[in-house]
Amino acid sequence: MTKVAVLGFGTVGSGVVEIISGSSFIDKVGKELSVKAILDIRQFPESPFADIITNDYEKILGDDEIEIVIETMGGIDPAFDFSMRALKAGKSVVTSNKELVAKKGAILMKTARENGVSYLFEASVGGGIPIINPLHNCLAANEINSIMGILNGTTNYILTQMIKKGRSFDEALADAQQKGYAEKNPAADVEGHDTCRKIAILSALAYGKQLDSDAIHTEGITNITLKDVEYAESIDHCIKLIGRSKKIGDKVYAKVSPLMLPKDHPLSGVEDVFNAILVNGSATGDVMFYGRGAGKLPTASAVVADCIDIIKHNKTGAPFWTEGGELTSDSGEDVKYYIRIKNGNQRTENGVSAVFGKVRWIESCAGEAVFVTPPLAQAEMAAGIKKLESLFGRDKILGMIEVLF
Amino acid sequence: MTKVAVLGFGTVGSGVVEIISGSSFIDKVGKELSVKAILDIRQFPESPFADIITNDYEKILGDDEIEIVIETMGGIDPAFDFSMRALKAGKSVVTSNKELVAKKGAILMKTARENGVSYLFEASVGGGIPIINPLHNCLAANEINSIMGILNGTTNYILTQMIKKGRSFDEALADAQQKGYAEKNPAADVEGHDTCRKIAILSALAYGKQLDSDAIHTEGITNITLKDVEYAESIDHCIKLIGRSKKIGDKVYAKVSPLMLPKDHPLSGVEDVFNAILVNGSATGDVMFYGRGAGKLPTASAVVADCIDIIKHNKTGAPFWTEGGELTSDSGEDVKYYIRIKNGNQRTENGVSAVFGKVRWIESCAGEAVFVTPPLAQAEMAAGIKKLESLFGRDKILGMIEVLF
Repeated sequence: MTKVAVLGFGTVGSGVVEIISGSSFIDKVGKELSVKAILDIRQFPESPFADIITNDYEKILGDDEIEIVIETMGGIDPAFDFSMRALKAGKSVVTSNKELVAKKGAILMKTARENGVSYLFEASVGGGIPIINPLHNCLAANEINSIMGILNGTTNYILTQMIKKGRSFDEALADAQQKGYAEKNPAADVEGHDTCRKIAILSALAYGKQLDSDAIHTEGITNITLKDVEYAESIDHCIKLIGRSKKIGDKVYAKVSPLMLPKDHPLSGVEDVFNAILVNGSATGDVMFYGRGAGKLPTASAVVADCIDIIKHNKTGAPFWTEGGELTSDSGEDVKYYIRIKNGNQRTENGVSAVFGKVRWIESCAGEAVFVTPPLAQAEMAAGIKKLESLFGRDKILGMIEVLF
Repeated sequence: MTKVAVLGFGTVGSGVVEIISGSSFIDKVGKELSVKAILDIRQFPESPFADIITNDYEKILGDDEIEIVIETMGGIDPAFDFSMRALKAGKSVVTSNKELVAKKGAILMKTARENGVSYLFEASVGGGIPIINPLHNCLAANEINSIMGILNGTTNYILTQMIKKGRSFDEALADAQQKGYAEKNPAADVEGHDTCRKIAILSALAYGKQLDSDAIHTEGITNITLKDVEYAESIDHCIKLIGRSKKIGDKVYAKVSPLMLPKDHPLSGVEDVFNAILVNGSATGDVMFYGRGAGKLPTASAVVADCIDIIKHNKTGAPFWTEGGELTSDSGEDVKYYIRIKNGNQRTENGVSAVFGKVRWIESCAGEAVFVTPPLAQAEMAAGIKKLESLFGRDKILGMIEVLF
């Protein structure tokens, strides 16, 4: 019998307790799992687990029977302190806390190693989609070249509603909130921070070094309008919020932003709350992982799978990266942009052509000029956009989205 | 340093040698891997590995330095005998041989366990797509309900050519052969046997018991015509060769056949030589794995990842299933069929309606009646098709494909 403690009795924590107490693990790992304690500052007098809920972490820490601490609290404080102390006390830690892994992963894994235990975090990215373990183990014979993914279900649901139902951003957000897919304060999702943490985790794992997630260029979807969605549709593209990264020598190019994808791109068909992660490996080429990126049971099942992994594999071979990853803002590749300008007329068109040369015009409403630039080096593109802004005024540029090609 | 032997210096075997001799594994597993011997009855005097190629298996078996035997020979004989003897000699075995795993997996895994070594086979399904390890480890907190997948790149390439380029089956096959995607004798691919072995492996792993792959209902794509592809397109469906299985109580429903999928189904967008496997877990819901299902380096990288797994994890926790799985031909679900009849006229239509009630007529060429039946229990459907055959004659039924809904 392996005994665990669960820190935080929220959505994921209660899902973990539900799965562990409702399943038998004898066939899979040769022994049972059981939840000995649940830490929460709230009280749950109605819960069947009321008698094992405590607000005293010291009791958990001092209990030698508890081998694994499952941290589903979220945030940095006190999750970081609690996790470090558990590891130092010789307990493995399993987490779904993407913020903590993105910011403090390196020191947590180092501490785990020093104490002969594991720090595992499959549930921190992609909910129930197996991605951390496959990236770490199954693709071990590859150099990972790049990663791109739809990593946030809330924003993907909102964009899908805009694309399929013609809803505005505000209407789609309200619908997502009503369905429980978006929080009351949706900033972390719609402004891209959640996606940023996840691409930071995947990149650290793939390239071996922790990145400063605060320094990753991050744009959300709050500026995407129904018009942008329709123009994208008219050239057989769709708009998705994409987290991506690429190894450039010793550095990493990483970015979170909306991207126009051709309709036949594997990520284009990923709709609603689904997530998908496309990994390019040196030997395998493109490999994609797809599924529900959030939700109580999918995420909880990933936590429990990590616990099983610890029991089966005796705490060896866990994912590991070190501090000190460096970011670069130069992808080394040409970029293309969709740009939408107010007051489209012959003079606007002449101005655009003077700046970008031959562009692809998109048939637009009266009074707008909409086009896709030719591919340009990043610096050239930035200079072109600056010229455009000085030519027409910054406020006349209604939309600007990178186009994948 | 971990030393390995490679049995069979064909496409996959030479890819394995290439990856192992061209990579450093120190960072990943703390030691290097090296190929000490290659077994092949052919001689390769021009190869840089000529001096380690042998045709004497006893030498490999008796070499205590060789810890892992990599079997990439294919077929049952002598691969089965060689693998059993390696396991009994205390060597772990890694294989890409789907036929052997499908037919003899249970006894090979049992022998591995008895001898304290591993028998791993990530490369046997889906080439470079991580599927065996994620199914076994990452989804361990789930009961697997069902699996369906595009498991054969050759047939998917042929069908994609028919759909996208309007080529006939024969033209598309010739093109695939010319590109090296199909063998000179394409029977194992186009008749569905390759897909059958793979769904047998995935099902055994997911449900815990080996199935008799010869007893799995297996249809290939040789009867699919360009007309069928066009009719499917006209109702926003596409035809794919699908291997699928589902747990029904203690038994397993498994089938390999062409299937018409709605265009918005996640497997619909899987084109060319790509494979994808959709797994439904009790907690995660649908999860999909996508990538190149074949090819020298993708497959070889999966073999090498298994070797790394063995070194890191000290041979514990390998996939395992036992003999004695039972098949059922009853999926317990209603089915729908697309049916295409020669000599379509009012009398034909009346006959069809008399048998199936209200069907969905598809606009067809003159002289054909084409429709999709309503959903019916499997037995009812079989009876209906029998009636149709006796009404019009068996040879008048030009096409019949199950439709997913």
